[in-house]
Amino acid sequence: MKQIAVYDTTLRDGCQAEGVAFSVEDKLRLAQRLDRIGVAYIEGGWPNETNPRDREFFRRAAEMQWHTAKLTAFGSTRRASVAPQDDSQLRDLIDSQAPVITIFGKSWDFHATDIVRVALDENLRMISDSVAYLKQHRDEVIFDAEHFFDGYKANARYAMECLRAAANAGADALVLCDTNGGSLPEEISQLVEVVTAEFDVPLGIHCHNDAGLAVANTIAAVQAGCSHVQGTINGYGERAGNANLCVIIPNLELKLGMRALPEGRLVELTDLSHFTNEIANLPPDSRQPYVGTSAFAHKGGMHVNAVLKNPASFEHIEPEMVGNERRILVSDYSGSSTILHKLQKIWPDMKRDDPLVGAILKRIKHLEKDGYEFEAAEASFELLAKRIKESLVPPFDLQGYRVTIYKADENTEPYSEATVKVGVGDKEVHTAGEGTGPVNALDNALRKALTELFPKLSRLSLTDYKVRVLRADEGTAAAVRVLVETSNGEKSWGTVGVHENIIEASWQAVIDSLIYGLLNGGD
Amino acid sequence: MKQIAVYDTTLRDGCQAEGVAFSVEDKLRLAQRLDRIGVAYIEGGWPNETNPRDREFFRRAAEMQWHTAKLTAFGSTRRASVAPQDDSQLRDLIDSQAPVITIFGKSWDFHATDIVRVALDENLRMISDSVAYLKQHRDEVIFDAEHFFDGYKANARYAMECLRAAANAGADALVLCDTNGGSLPEEISQLVEVVTAEFDVPLGIHCHNDAGLAVANTIAAVQAGCSHVQGTINGYGERAGNANLCVIIPNLELKLGMRALPEGRLVELTDLSHFTNEIANLPPDSRQPYVGTSAFAHKGGMHVNAVLKNPASFEHIEPEMVGNERRILVSDYSGSSTILHKLQKIWPDMKRDDPLVGAILKRIKHLEKDGYEFEAAEASFELLAKRIKESLVPPFDLQGYRVTIYKADENTEPYSEATVKVGVGDKEVHTAGEGTGPVNALDNALRKALTELFPKLSRLSLTDYKVRVLRADEGTAAAVRVLVETSNGEKSWGTVGVHENIIEASWQAVIDSLIYGLLNGGD
Repeated sequence: MKQIAVYDTTLRDGCQAEGVAFSVEDKLRLAQRLDRIGVAYIEGGWPNETNPRDREFFRRAAEMQWHTAKLTAFGSTRRASVAPQDDSQLRDLIDSQAPVITIFGKSWDFHATDIVRVALDENLRMISDSVAYLKQHRDEVIFDAEHFFDGYKANARYAMECLRAAANAGADALVLCDTNGGSLPEEISQLVEVVTAEFDVPLGIHCHNDAGLAVANTIAAVQAGCSHVQGTINGYGERAGNANLCVIIPNLELKLGMRALPEGRLVELTDLSHFTNEIANLPPDSRQPYVGTSAFAHKGGMHVNAVLKNPASFEHIEPEMVGNERRILVSDYSGSSTILHKLQKIWPDMKRDDPLVGAILKRIKHLEKDGYEFEAAEASFELLAKRIKESLVPPFDLQGYRVTIYKADENTEPYSEATVKVGVGDKEVHTAGEGTGPVNALDNALRKALTELFPKLSRLSLTDYKVRVLRADEGTAAAVRVLVETSNGEKSWGTVGVHENIIEASWQAVIDSLIYGLLNGGD
Repeated sequence: MKQIAVYDTTLRDGCQAEGVAFSVEDKLRLAQRLDRIGVAYIEGGWPNETNPRDREFFRRAAEMQWHTAKLTAFGSTRRASVAPQDDSQLRDLIDSQAPVITIFGKSWDFHATDIVRVALDENLRMISDSVAYLKQHRDEVIFDAEHFFDGYKANARYAMECLRAAANAGADALVLCDTNGGSLPEEISQLVEVVTAEFDVPLGIHCHNDAGLAVANTIAAVQAGCSHVQGTINGYGERAGNANLCVIIPNLELKLGMRALPEGRLVELTDLSHFTNEIANLPPDSRQPYVGTSAFAHKGGMHVNAVLKNPASFEHIEPEMVGNERRILVSDYSGSSTILHKLQKIWPDMKRDDPLVGAILKRIKHLEKDGYEFEAAEASFELLAKRIKESLVPPFDLQGYRVTIYKADENTEPYSEATVKVGVGDKEVHTAGEGTGPVNALDNALRKALTELFPKLSRLSLTDYKVRVLRADEGTAAAVRVLVETSNGEKSWGTVGVHENIIEASWQAVIDSLIYGLLNGGD
C-alpha cells in the first residue's frame, strides 16, 4: 500500500486566507488535533522578527509532546548577496527548534528578475547556499519550488536548474508548487512525470484552488509520482484557498487505496474539519465533500426513497468512514418516503399507508408555498405532525400580545416593551417585559409569564435567530421567515415562523421552540 | 473554436441543495439572468402534479421572451408496464410547453432491479418508448443516463444498451451522469472515450462534487469528447453539490480556448454568481474560484508587494475577465485608494491628500466593525460622506416614532400601527399609519407625513428589503443589518441600517433612502 506523507500548512498558508487569524493558543490547539489525526508534518508558521506570534508558537511547541507529526518551520532562501550564516531569517528558522525546516525559492525566471530583482545565477546560489547551510543544522530540509509549473512553462531549463540546485545541496524533498493555482491536471501530470524521471529525491505537490482544480491537481500529481502532499484543513488559504486535505485524504485512502493517515484515523476527519471551523470562527461550508453537514443529506423524494432501500444508490461512500452521517431532509421535492422516515422517528410503528402520511405531506407542501421551510426546523415539523394527529396537548394557551417600540427623538435609543397574556389551565397570566428590540422584549415577556409555572423554561436559551425576507421585491410589506434555534444545554432544536409581520413570524417560531422544550426537554 | 453547450440546472438540480428553495418569482428572475448571460439551456424544473410551483413556472415562462436559452422541462422515463401516452408524468412534460424535454433513465443495472424493481429489458423499453413518444411532440429530447459511470463499472454492456435504447429512439443528446459524484477524472475520460467511439449523437456530462472533483471531471469529459455540459450556478445541488458553472465556464473559455457563452458575456459571471446567492439567500462562498470576493484578494505582505509590481506574479488570470476585482487586504494605502475612487464619483476634484479621505476611511472602518456594509448601500455611503463634509442640508428633521403591534387573541391577525413626528422648516407634522407589519406601518406613516410637502416622494417605491442577523449566537438580542433598495422608476439606490432593534435598523435605512431620493431624484 503506497504511503503518502501528508504535510499540513493550515497554520501557515491557511492563515493567508481572508478572515483567518489564529492566536498562539489557537495554533497550539489545532496543531495538537492535527497530531492526533496523524498527519506527517505540521508547518507551524514563519518564525521571523515580523511574526512574533509564530516565534512564540515554536517556543511553546518545543516543550510539548508530538506523536505522529514533525513540526516544520517555514521561511525563504537567503537574501541576495548575503552569506547564509549572516541572514537573520535563516537564523530564525534554526532558532525555532523545529525538527524540520522548509524553505521556498523562486523557480520562475520572471519572479527572480522582475519581483525579487536578482540575477538568475544568484537566485540559484541563494537556493543551494540556503539548503546546504540549513542541512548543517537539521537532518531534514524541504525545498518548496514556488511557481514551479508556471516557471517551467516560461523557462523549462531554468525551473529544472532551480530543483537541481536544491537537490544537489541536500534537500530531502522537492515540492512542486502551483502557486497561482491556474494549472490543469494534465499539465501537472506531465510535468511531475518529467521531474520524476530526472530526480531520485522524494517529490511533493502544493496546489492552490484558483481554477477549482486543487484537489484534482494534487491527485494527478500523486498518480504521476509525488509522495508528499501539502494542503490545509477545509482548504483555507489565500484567494480561492489551498488544496483541501479534508477532500484529498479520503480520496487517497478510499478511491486510490493509499495510506495517508495511520490506520483507523480517517473517521476523525469530520470532527477535525468542524473543530478547525470553530477555531477559525468561520461559517462551515455545509456542501464541503466528505465532511460537510450536507455531504450526505438527501432531499429529492425519489432519492430519499432509494437511499432508504440501499444507501449505495445515491452515496459514493459510507458517511461513517469519514465520521460523517446521513441526513434525510424535508422539502418541496420530498415525497411520502421522507415524511414516513421522519414520522417513524416520532412514532416508530407508523406505516406507509397510514392516512396521516399523506395528510402531513399535503400540509407541508402547502406551508412551503407560503414560505415555510422545515429542513432546519425539525421541532416545528414534529409539533405540526402531532397537531394534525391531534395528539398534542398544548401546555399553555396564547391569548394575545402587544409590542411597542418608542423613540422619543433623534438622539435617544428606541425603547421596546411587550405585554403578553397566556392561559395555563384555569389560570391567566398577563405580564410585560422589555428588551433590546421588539422580538427580544416579546421573548422576555413570554418567559416571565411562563417560567413561574414551568421552571424548566429557565434552562432554555435561544442560540440562533435568522430572518429571511421572502418575495423581497414587495419592499417592507414582504413576508418574512424566521428560523430560531433553541438549546437546553444538552440538545438543541429548530423552529420556524412565517408572516408578513416579522413580530408575528418570530412569535410563531419562539412559541414552537418553548412548547417543544416543555414537551421534550426532560424535567 | 470549439463550442460547448452550457446546460444550466440551477432551477432543478440546484434546488435539491439543502437550504435552497426558490419561489416561482425567484425562478423566473433567475431564468432571465441566465438567459441574459447566454447559457444554451435552462432546465426549469420538474412540472408534475407534486410540484405545482414548477408547473406554474413553465406556464408563466411560456409567455415570456427568451433570447439565447432554450427552456427545458425535466422528468423521468415512463413508469413500468404503462404505455407512454398513458403516463401522466410524460403528459405533464408535454403540457409544460417547454421547447426541449430532458428525461433521465436508469443505466445502472442495480438501480433498475433493486431500486425501481423492474426487469432489465423492461427498463430498456421504458427508455426507448419514452424518448420515442416525446420525440413525436418535440424537436429536441435529451436523455440523461443516470449513474452511467457507476453503471458501466458494474455492467458495461447493460449501461451501453441503455444509451443505445435512447439513441435509437431519437434522443438528440446522451448525457452521461456521475450521479453519486464519486468518480475520478481518469475514469471519466476513459469512459467518455469509449462512448464517443460508439455513438454519433452529441454527448453531455453531468457531474456531482462528492469527491471534490466535479469541475475536473467535467473538464476531463469535455477533453474526451463531450460538447454539452450540465451544472449549476455556485455549484448548488444535493449533498456536496453539482458541477459549478461559475468555475467551469471560465476554465473552458480562458484555459481551454473554447466558447461557452456568447462573446463578451464572461464579464457578467461574478454578478450572476452574487445575484444567485441573493435570490437563494445563501451566504456567498467568498473563496469560490473566479467569482468569490476573496478570489483575487491578497493579504501576505510579500504577495501584495509583488502584485503591485505585476499582478501576474500571484494571479492566474486578470480578475476583470470574469467581472471580479483585485482586493488588497489590511492595507491603509489600498483602503484610501478605494475611498478616494468612491469620493471622486461625488466630487470629481477630490484629491488623495484631502483630509476628508482619511476622516471618511476611519469612520467607515469603525462602522464596518459595528456591522455596517456599504458595498450594496452606495446611497448611505454618499450621505455619510456629505454629513462628514458638513455639506448635507437635511430636508426634514425626525423627531420620533412609536410603533405598536397588537394581537388580540390566537385567531386574529396582528395589527400594526405607527406614529411619526417630523419637522420641516418651522412646521411639525405628527401623523399615523398602519401596515402589514411594523416596518411597513412605519414606512407608510413617514410617507404620509412627508408626501404633502415633498410630492415627488410619491414616486419612490421600496423595491427590496433584506435582513441579516449579525452575531447570531446572541439569539433575539443580536444586532440586525437591514439593506433597502429604493427606486424612483428611473434609477435605484441602496441604503443600510444596523441596530439591535430591527425597527430602528429599518428606520435608519428607510430614512436614508428617502433623503437620498429627495436630494438626487430630480423634480
